[in-house]
Amino acid sequence: MNQPFEALKRGAFEIIPEKDFLSKLEESAKTTRPLRIKLGIDPTAPDIHLGHSVVLRKLRKFQELGHQIVLIIGDFTARIGDPSGRSETRKVLSEAEIEANTQTYLAQIGKILDTKDKARFELRYNSEWLAPLTFQKIIELSHQFTVAQLLERQDFAMRYQNARPIGLHEFFYPIMQGYDSVAIKSDVELGGTDQKFNILVGRELQRVHGFASPQVALLMPILEGTDGVAKMSKSLNNYIGITESADEMFGKVMRIPDHLIPRYFELLTELPMNEVVSMDKALKANQGNPREWKAKLGEMVAAHYHGADAARKAAENFDRVFKEKKTPEEIPEFIVPVDLMRDGRAVASKLLVSANLAPSMREAKRLLSQGSVEADGESLKDENAVLQIRDGMVLQAGKRRFVRLRTG
Amino acid sequence: MNQPFEALKRGAFEIIPEKDFLSKLEESAKTTRPLRIKLGIDPTAPDIHLGHSVVLRKLRKFQELGHQIVLIIGDFTARIGDPSGRSETRKVLSEAEIEANTQTYLAQIGKILDTKDKARFELRYNSEWLAPLTFQKIIELSHQFTVAQLLERQDFAMRYQNARPIGLHEFFYPIMQGYDSVAIKSDVELGGTDQKFNILVGRELQRVHGFASPQVALLMPILEGTDGVAKMSKSLNNYIGITESADEMFGKVMRIPDHLIPRYFELLTELPMNEVVSMDKALKANQGNPREWKAKLGEMVAAHYHGADAARKAAENFDRVFKEKKTPEEIPEFIVPVDLMRDGRAVASKLLVSANLAPSMREAKRLLSQGSVEADGESLKDENAVLQIRDGMVLQAGKRRFVRLRTG
Repeated sequence: MNQPFEALKRGAFEIIPEKDFLSKLEESAKTTRPLRIKLGIDPTAPDIHLGHSVVLRKLRKFQELGHQIVLIIGDFTARIGDPSGRSETRKVLSEAEIEANTQTYLAQIGKILDTKDKARFELRYNSEWLAPLTFQKIIELSHQFTVAQLLERQDFAMRYQNARPIGLHEFFYPIMQGYDSVAIKSDVELGGTDQKFNILVGRELQRVHGFASPQVALLMPILEGTDGVAKMSKSLNNYIGITESADEMFGKVMRIPDHLIPRYFELLTELPMNEVVSMDKALKANQGNPREWKAKLGEMVAAHYHGADAARKAAENFDRVFKEKKTPEEIPEFIVPVDLMRDGRAVASKLLVSANLAPSMREAKRLLSQGSVEADGESLKDENAVLQIRDGMVLQAGKRRFVRLRTG
Repeated sequence: MNQPFEALKRGAFEIIPEKDFLSKLEESAKTTRPLRIKLGIDPTAPDIHLGHSVVLRKLRKFQELGHQIVLIIGDFTARIGDPSGRSETRKVLSEAEIEANTQTYLAQIGKILDTKDKARFELRYNSEWLAPLTFQKIIELSHQFTVAQLLERQDFAMRYQNARPIGLHEFFYPIMQGYDSVAIKSDVELGGTDQKFNILVGRELQRVHGFASPQVALLMPILEGTDGVAKMSKSLNNYIGITESADEMFGKVMRIPDHLIPRYFELLTELPMNEVVSMDKALKANQGNPREWKAKLGEMVAAHYHGADAARKAAENFDRVFKEKKTPEEIPEFIVPVDLMRDGRAVASKLLVSANLAPSMREAKRLLSQGSVEADGESLKDENAVLQIRDGMVLQAGKRRFVRLRTG
């Protein structure tokens, strides 16, 4: 068994073509020339979560095996943006914004990748080779593709079928990304499965430019969010950010649906695959203890970003609060506004909204009527409950939201 | 009635929008600023025929009214050509070829347009503004159009429906042609009806570039060939070239089907439109004398290119040959091959093929059996006829093909 190959293949959705990937690895081992592994990103304000980490961790694995990451900042497209503003997807970014976003991004991925060692990490901006392209060259690049091929790309196909406009300039994006591969001479390009088309454009353009061994596509799956349904994303609020605290990471992992456990282990940890596989089998047979597996997963994930000690502490905090039903060591304080109180009492729903434990009166009343609100551990079961307040009282909404009430 | 407007509108298939055209003419009359009238051409080896002359004669009319023609040589696209050779439609042309073709073209259109007076005629090469375009600018231009809009262009739509490939680079051509209009600040662009899409792209790009009064499209119909069915074209051999002799022009006009007479008068002469209209009415009522009208048309057309004297002479020659049934002043000689003769006689069908009066034995026999072959004015009515040959004998096949037989 080729160990580097197996380690790199772990979790991959697809490698195109797998045999080329194997020969590249063998060639690299023979010649000791590191492979150049490409990842392209948009320099939009990033907030990296575990969904992004799937690809970044794979890059880390390449680094560990001696290969070189080439990170491409798509500053050229970001500088162009969307001239007429017809589409809301791209805003023009200034050079300063691009640079600030790049630094924020680098600081975050520095938690996963080695971004300091130049032999292992190269940073490039694609305006370097895209801005000077001549019209003649652009026509030659475009010539390699037909309109029908581009319309086969899934998102274009959907939009065309649904009569939603596709700007002609959008057809350039795959070609620009593909030409990046020509410019930096990548051996492998990483991306989510949604990048398959663009990465294969890069392979084709390398071939046209006479590369003897054009780049291989290594496609990682799109990670489901903590809801277990949709793609992890900030806007769906089903994400775990890599800058979140160990407590938050651990807590969010504990709330994922059971069926995600093996997938998260596979894509987010280095737990040996045979253990992942037996866990999966046990789960499907309704055996084993999912809660314990989640705790192990949560601790492993938190340890990646905060170290083993902080992760263990997060697990202990979690146990204390949610298993032993104790309040956490640190509870934020909330000074009850005077106008909410009358004779030392307050309408519970108003108090919940005011203390930010519920987003609206409606939600506050829903929580109350469900019995999800406790004051000093006692459930308030009436949506119109009026609470006798004492200084230091702990008010809890749902499983994880607390405040300590202060009467000033 | 606005006389310049009516004169310019004569024969036009469509003017988009007509009211803008009117205001441009009025504005020009008021300010005495000539309008800039654009025509773009490919610098392929040209052989101009009456089909092309429809647009060129319209340009001539603009010149007569004081406006300025801007002829754009599409050297940029010709220099790029088709890099992979997938399509057979475009070959890369060298600069020398482009220049030679341009000079040939200018020499020919000089028979119709004033190409000498710089105030009336400006020659530009579109590489001047297309070659230096940046990628950023190209993306901005492309952004103005959607893929769906481009796929609505008739030829693209047909190819897409029939799953015939459209190279992505082909989508650039309308945009390049459109940008030509921005670069040269045209007021009106002329073209055949097949140019409607491209010319409107130019109008849109001028609008986007802040032109207060973007260019108007003046679309001329595509002229039918002398067969009265298909578009006039060299490859269909249904054309009348503008470098053909007065005799050839006159003769070809005499052979057009009657229904083309008014259309040819409208698009190829200056015969007043009221006369054209009454001729059309008479034709449809089976009145009048089509042969006389054709003779008038043929003489007018020949006179444009060869002068009135030569045209009159061509008409007389034609009459002598075809009406008075006399042989023409000049008849090519054909020396009868010895192996065709036996005792001073030859098989007529073989003789016809050998003398190039019939393309095949089959056709030769058909002509004979139809009674369409004459020797010294006597019809040979048998497809197996054997002819007693004398030196100087005139052999005629059909109405217009003769040889004088020589026995060496």
